[in-house]
Amino acid sequence: LSAYSTRWKRKLQRQIRGEIAAEVLRMKDAIGIVPGLAVILVGDREESATYVSKKKEACEVVGINSFEVHLPEDATEQEVLNSISGFNEDPSVHGILVQLPLPSHMDEQNILNAVSIEKDVDGFHPLNIGCLAMRGREPLFVPCTPKGCIELLHRYGIPIKGKRAVVIGRSNIVGMPVALLLQREDATVSIVHSRTKNPEELTRQADIVIAAVGQTNMVRGSWIKPGAVVIDVGINPVEDKKKLSGFRLVGDVCYKEAKEIASAITPVPGGVGPMTIAMLLSNTLISAKRIHNF
Amino acid sequence: LSAYSTRWKRKLQRQIRGEIAAEVLRMKDAIGIVPGLAVILVGDREESATYVSKKKEACEVVGINSFEVHLPEDATEQEVLNSISGFNEDPSVHGILVQLPLPSHMDEQNILNAVSIEKDVDGFHPLNIGCLAMRGREPLFVPCTPKGCIELLHRYGIPIKGKRAVVIGRSNIVGMPVALLLQREDATVSIVHSRTKNPEELTRQADIVIAAVGQTNMVRGSWIKPGAVVIDVGINPVEDKKKLSGFRLVGDVCYKEAKEIASAITPVPGGVGPMTIAMLLSNTLISAKRIHNF
Ligand SMILES: NC(=O)C1=CN([C@@H]2O[C@H](COP(=O)(O)OP(=O)(O)OC[C@H]3O[C@@H](n4cnc5c(N)ncnc54)[C@H](OP(=O)(O)O)[C@@H]3O)[C@@H](O)[C@H]2O)C=CC1
Ligand SMILES: NC(=O)C1=CN([C@@H]2O[C@H](COP(=O)(O)OP(=O)(O)OC[C@H]3O[C@@H](n4cnc5c(N)ncnc54)[C@H](OP(=O)(O)O)[C@@H]3O)[C@@H](O)[C@H]2O)C=CC1
Repeated sequence: LSAYSTRWKRKLQRQIRGEIAAEVLRMKDAIGIVPGLAVILVGDREESATYVSKKKEACEVVGINSFEVHLPEDATEQEVLNSISGFNEDPSVHGILVQLPLPSHMDEQNILNAVSIEKDVDGFHPLNIGCLAMRGREPLFVPCTPKGCIELLHRYGIPIKGKRAVVIGRSNIVGMPVALLLQREDATVSIVHSRTKNPEELTRQADIVIAAVGQTNMVRGSWIKPGAVVIDVGINPVEDKKKLSGFRLVGDVCYKEAKEIASAITPVPGGVGPMTIAMLLSNTLISAKRIHNF
Repeated sequence: LSAYSTRWKRKLQRQIRGEIAAEVLRMKDAIGIVPGLAVILVGDREESATYVSKKKEACEVVGINSFEVHLPEDATEQEVLNSISGFNEDPSVHGILVQLPLPSHMDEQNILNAVSIEKDVDGFHPLNIGCLAMRGREPLFVPCTPKGCIELLHRYGIPIKGKRAVVIGRSNIVGMPVALLLQREDATVSIVHSRTKNPEELTRQADIVIAAVGQTNMVRGSWIKPGAVVIDVGINPVEDKKKLSGFRLVGDVCYKEAKEIASAITPVPGGVGPMTIAMLLSNTLISAKRIHNF
């Protein structure tokens, strides 16, 4: 991470995908089973469609089967539930992912609850989060983005134990689980959120900063302790007339300032994003191995 | 809490018990149901027996029925499981508590898992802890000691939102859930544990300190920010020849020093301990009300 250059990034991506592909192959050879990931997409949000196609692409690269159901924006909740229960019962599917957000006429919690916990590769089920929070318990799946953050730290040999860590943001899908993971690895963790007074002061004490806020460039250089490691989870579109799309993506950390002070920082795009997809593949593989006792 | 004198303490105990007793009576009058708490005690640890009898006594005071099974130290795991399943099915029992620790030949996790989640008034089930950790989810029960700590803060009108809180200790039964609760109330929470370097530095930043470590007098006066509120969960026996028992109980906080600096501090014994029992009664009542839709 201290050399989180494009070359390193590519190398890491290649390495992780290579490891997963090798396991997928070994499993296929040994027991004839190929892991399968099913994605349910509802509606026509361009962003969601892009994510889904990236996930399918990534599956292909490592040899994981991918399945997709695409329902129209005006589909009923029951139709989504039917798709889920089909995948729950399909033995060739080991991971099920419902692409969020769902159309507003659907009850998100109800739909997510329908995914069989054994195939919930997102790891957002409360039972799973409870196991993540508790000592002596093991979650079935670690949520993908938080897992990707920790995996980055591991791969770059950054020690966590005994370090001060500050997580900015406490959402169910990133901030809270990433804080629980850091704590499991014996960091001393503080969680900053929108009610925190003087977030800068606390952040400046951290050896490891993980920002998952959704606020463009909120974390300035002055918030960073010299030599700290910064993981920027944020993905925020900002207007950019020079781009064909009319916007570009930036993180929650002011990269230009922070990179001068941090010992390492992940870029946006290209940092945590690709790790999230890699961890989705990893969770699908773990699920297939568990279901087939491999 | 700023006047956590004996007089106040008594008044608070009386008040909480009075509220619970009134609800128990109202329920009995309206639908003829009396909440029931079942306690399973295994073996002859004197301390455990004392706790159990305190709990039974407290039930009596507020009009909750109490049931007890006392099994010998050499009972089998199956015997404990049988008692649990009896209480799971018994409609007059709304809360089930297995007094810990269990004899070492038993699998604690296995036994606790057997308690029906609807009657798990201890609130230690991972599904329950997961709901505690997640926004938009509500746990069935909030674990008693953590709930007691927060209730103390509420009853004494101590604001939590936006405050810096440090929890010392991260056990499944106290530290971790109390940190989740503080966070739910919008404190900015840091968790200190045995791998934390310089715990004093972080603790001194806190407006609210909750100590649940099990280390006699670990938190010194110098650890406390002037005016902070200190909740001492620790209950540690230290030798005392002047006592009949040969020991007395002290907390994790050096009371003598801390009381000069804190704006409020709970004493040991008599602070969090009685609140824990009160919250057990409260959870049993909540359970009975939920089961009977009252
Ligand atoms: N790289 C990847 O793969 C992924 C990236 N993301 C990106 O990460 C970011 C966060 O996503 P997500 O967790 O879903 O977002 P949410 O909106 O669910 O949560 C944002 C969190 O940040 C906190 N917050 C908001 N404003 C401030 C502020 N001014 N100061 C301090 N804290 C603040 C909120 O606090 P409070 O709780 O008090 O409201 C909340 O806890 C987004 O940019 C998103 O696009 C998300 C998922 C995956
Ligand atoms: N008032 C009441 O009703 C109750 C009181 N208690 C009392 O509360 C205390 C804690 O109980 P419990 O949570 O069950 O204890 P545990 O032993 O399960 O957990 C103790 C926690 O304290 C941490 N710790 C230990 N030593 C240190 C240290 N030197 N510095 C920083 N952290 C340290 C441990 O860290 P690590 O995780 O790294 O090991 C661990 O997280 C005990 O005295 C107990 O008797 C408990 C329950 C109810």
